[in-house]
Amino acid sequence: MVYITRREHFNAAHKLFKEDWSDQKNMEIFGKCSNPNWHGHNYDLFVTVKGEPNPTTGFVIDLKKLSKLINVLVIDKLDHKNLNLDVDFMKGRMASTEVLAIAIWEQIAPALKLEGSELHSVKLYETENNYVEYFG
Amino acid sequence: MVYITRREHFNAAHKLFKEDWSDQKNMEIFGKCSNPNWHGHNYDLFVTVKGEPNPTTGFVIDLKKLSKLINVLVIDKLDHKNLNLDVDFMKGRMASTEVLAIAIWEQIAPALKLEGSELHSVKLYETENNYVEYFG
Amino acid sequence: MVYITRREHFNAAHKLFKEDWSDQKNMEIFGKCSNPNWHGHNYDLFVTVKGEPNPTTGFVIDLKKLSKLINVLVIDKLDHKNLNLDVDFMKGRMASTEVLAIAIWEQIAPALKLEGSELHSVKLYETENNYVEYFG
Amino acid sequence: MVYITRREHFNAAHKLFKEDWSDQKNMEIFGKCSNPNWHGHNYDLFVTVKGEPNPTTGFVIDLKKLSKLINVLVIDKLDHKNLNLDVDFMKGRMASTEVLAIAIWEQIAPALKLEGSELHSVKLYETENNYVEYFG
Amino acid sequence: MVYITRREHFNAAHKLFKEDWSDQKNMEIFGKCSNPNWHGHNYDLFVTVKGEPNPTTGFVIDLKKLSKLINVLVIDKLDHKNLNLDVDFMKGRMASTEVLAIAIWEQIAPALKLEGSELHSVKLYETENNYVEYFG
Amino acid sequence: MVYITRREHFNAAHKLFKEDWSDQKNMEIFGKCSNPNWHGHNYDLFVTVKGEPNPTTGFVIDLKKLSKLINVLVIDKLDHKNLNLDVDFMKGRMASTEVLAIAIWEQIAPALKLEGSELHSVKLYETENNYVEYFG
Repeated sequence: MVYITRREHFNAAHKLFKEDWSDQKNMEIFGKCSNPNWHGHNYDLFVTVKGEPNPTTGFVIDLKKLSKLINVLVIDKLDHKNLNLDVDFMKGRMASTEVLAIAIWEQIAPALKLEGSELHSVKLYETENNYVEYFG
Repeated sequence: MVYITRREHFNAAHKLFKEDWSDQKNMEIFGKCSNPNWHGHNYDLFVTVKGEPNPTTGFVIDLKKLSKLINVLVIDKLDHKNLNLDVDFMKGRMASTEVLAIAIWEQIAPALKLEGSELHSVKLYETENNYVEYFG
Repeated sequence: MVYITRREHFNAAHKLFKEDWSDQKNMEIFGKCSNPNWHGHNYDLFVTVKGEPNPTTGFVIDLKKLSKLINVLVIDKLDHKNLNLDVDFMKGRMASTEVLAIAIWEQIAPALKLEGSELHSVKLYETENNYVEYFG
Repeated sequence: MVYITRREHFNAAHKLFKEDWSDQKNMEIFGKCSNPNWHGHNYDLFVTVKGEPNPTTGFVIDLKKLSKLINVLVIDKLDHKNLNLDVDFMKGRMASTEVLAIAIWEQIAPALKLEGSELHSVKLYETENNYVEYFG
Repeated sequence: MVYITRREHFNAAHKLFKEDWSDQKNMEIFGKCSNPNWHGHNYDLFVTVKGEPNPTTGFVIDLKKLSKLINVLVIDKLDHKNLNLDVDFMKGRMASTEVLAIAIWEQIAPALKLEGSELHSVKLYETENNYVEYFG
Repeated sequence: MVYITRREHFNAAHKLFKEDWSDQKNMEIFGKCSNPNWHGHNYDLFVTVKGEPNPTTGFVIDLKKLSKLINVLVIDKLDHKNLNLDVDFMKGRMASTEVLAIAIWEQIAPALKLEGSELHSVKLYETENNYVEYFG
């Protein structure tokens, strides 16, 4: 079994904020991440697929196909977008790195399965100082 | 003459957008950077001061003082903020990396002069693929 | 289950050296790492906590709390210190990256447990060319 | 159990190409990676060994010995070489990152075993945007 | 005057080799870089343009246009290519980083001038340990 | 004129400390950098040489020779050493990054001149957050 990883990027705005809380309570729980006027990040996304290399091509998966699949299913919906307002698969969910990593898994895993590939992990960097990993 | 540089970070939302243009014209000129609902970045800021090392301390400038000055004058106003809406020194200006680098210079240079130090450059990364430098 | 990681830094001096060995024997076993006058590193520490995101906040753990806990329990004791001489939890132990990673785990794991969180791993970079991981 | 990792580099030329296919078919399957005149990469190799730290030295393995072993067994054969033409252990195999990672494992694992150490993983970066991991 | 930089990548094969020298003499002068079967690198290219920000857009240059110009004029000709065999503007020239940086300048500078922009520098990384800068 | 840069590393211990001051005064001026028991860093050194590429080799300078010169003259004296105690060319000087960069210039510039090369700059990173540049 070999694990192969592709990195993609997106830049997005978000806030950590509960609509039914006061600004003051949001500030207590989420600190400056609750700024009502938003802030944003350069996100780095690492998608790992596992499998045995095809004996003819030497590939677990064609990285161009993997990149295209990630771009169509998640990057195009996230890049230069507002995670709270613009993204169909984040509607009604907290825009935390944890929840976003799970949501990205949910978008990618079934499509990879259809292609005969198996998603192993989603790793999402919000800053150089913090990242999240999800294995399904 | 020795040049010493301090790196600081901030995460912010912005958009490239002219209020007196239609959304369509903004899209033509600024592309996806004009998303009305904002997007954002992890900015990396490099501030360079030049001077001769103090013969007693070996310092051109005390980096803790430089860091504090940068944080009070610019980082506290930019971090987890919206560059178009929340930042006094960006009011009425385009939130491009170029304009932001000039604005940061204007905030820092006079304060450094008062301290007897000379600002050499402001270098501002918007992503790992693009950055701006300004020398006054 | 989601895994979330926080990066922290510290700069420290150390040597690899057994007091009951001659300088020559220390040099044979530890090479230039045994320099009696010390050397040092910029250490990068990655602490990973695992858990399910809280349905209200979307957090596995509040990263500000995690960062504070790491700083109080380990960074404040290690940063700008001598690992062999200044650090209570390293007394009598070899100051290798392996042993230091285990010692950091021992400091952090019980405190995280008290907070209701579960430590998954400690990853410690000594240089860009070598790092250690410990999972308890 | 502690996991310790050493990073090494090599720069090499390769192509993804099947001799019994036409150039056109190679282009269909492998795209620009099939350029008959070769292309190349700066490869980053991370070799991870697992074990318990020696109570005297604090080492899972002496990194200088690990580095030397990796250099003699794989780097010297790969660095500034053509992966398809010059490397004995890649003869007749596709020069994909997946296959190369497996081949590196096969070179290193038995030698480490002889030294009483256990190889845990080989991680191989072809570019900053893609890497492969193999665990035996 | 503001300086703005765009990073692009390419992966290429090359060798340092003079056809009219013996393999032995090439090895004496160029070492393992003269391997007749080629080796290769992931090149990082930083192109810096200088100018005053346009008062309407806040741009010195539209980075999308700059990126497209660099890609059409140099990246498309260099990426996944052999620098000695495949690149029109390197024909008959040594494939050293110095010469390549000058050749890239020559490709880009006139085209930027036609667009009303001024090229300031070309910075080319061959590995993380060496790079070249050219200012015309 | 082309500028070519070589990166080298060293790991060293130091403290910022004046012997004729009390520990308390050292703490006031130098903060935790004055820890009497030392601390340390992974230093990254970038040495830039300028010149015209040799028409035969395409080299401004042979990077292997440059690397060897830097290693013999400075790295071997600095790596795994104590900057205050072990380094002949730092005796009696503050071990600040500024002073160290100047001292490295003084070691390298004359030797490069003898080889017919011209040193352009020394850039020295103490941490990822601060570095110094010196141009003679």
